[in-house]
Amino acid sequence: MSATLEIGKKYVALVKEGKNEVILSELFTQDTVSIEAGAPPGQDRAAKGLEAIKGKSKWWRDNHTVHSAEVSGPYPNDDRFAVRFVYDVTHKPSGKRFSMDEVGLFTVSNGKITKEEFFYTVE
Amino acid sequence: MSATLEIGKKYVALVKEGKNEVILSELFTQDTVSIEAGAPPGQDRAAKGLEAIKGKSKWWRDNHTVHSAEVSGPYPNDDRFAVRFVYDVTHKPSGKRFSMDEVGLFTVSNGKITKEEFFYTVE
Repeated sequence: MSATLEIGKKYVALVKEGKNEVILSELFTQDTVSIEAGAPPGQDRAAKGLEAIKGKSKWWRDNHTVHSAEVSGPYPNDDRFAVRFVYDVTHKPSGKRFSMDEVGLFTVSNGKITKEEFFYTVE
Repeated sequence: MSATLEIGKKYVALVKEGKNEVILSELFTQDTVSIEAGAPPGQDRAAKGLEAIKGKSKWWRDNHTVHSAEVSGPYPNDDRFAVRFVYDVTHKPSGKRFSMDEVGLFTVSNGKITKEEFFYTVE
């Protein structure tokens, strides 16, 4: 099995177990960059470094209730793998329930994820 | 709508209509590069230029019967968009029927697709 596929399988298994903190501590590097398709006004599409990503991840978990999740993949190609996410969630502050359908693209270097990019339609 | 999203929507609509030749003639450039996750022994993962991609596309259509197809997306991020494909196909020479589950990643420049990359597990 390629290193990319191996890391991709670990990532998907940990997402399905809800172990986001293990993903950050074991699969990411201190310098990993996370890039969103869109960002709220005045905010950056990129979160640079593990602390910034942890902050973004905590904000997301604090503000959303996940009713169900479908995670497909990993889909590898060379040093990258893709994952498809379909989440049924409620945004806690507004009470609005919606479906989140997106693709994540992960770049692997030396057995760690050094970049994650999320693809979805920005409203 | 961003140019990337617009091209992505055209691409997905044409795939759903089975109009692969229109995709190649209208959305690709002469220099578009197509990169597979894997290649048969002795072959290249990359097809460079429209003629090479047309050849690969024709080979695929000649050798497979598509029973059903599910195409999801496009999922844009900046100048790229992703598409997820789930195909139920039969490989004509062997008669083997299988499910093809993959993610395509497309790079857009000046309103055309200049690179396509396919992500899937190589057996």
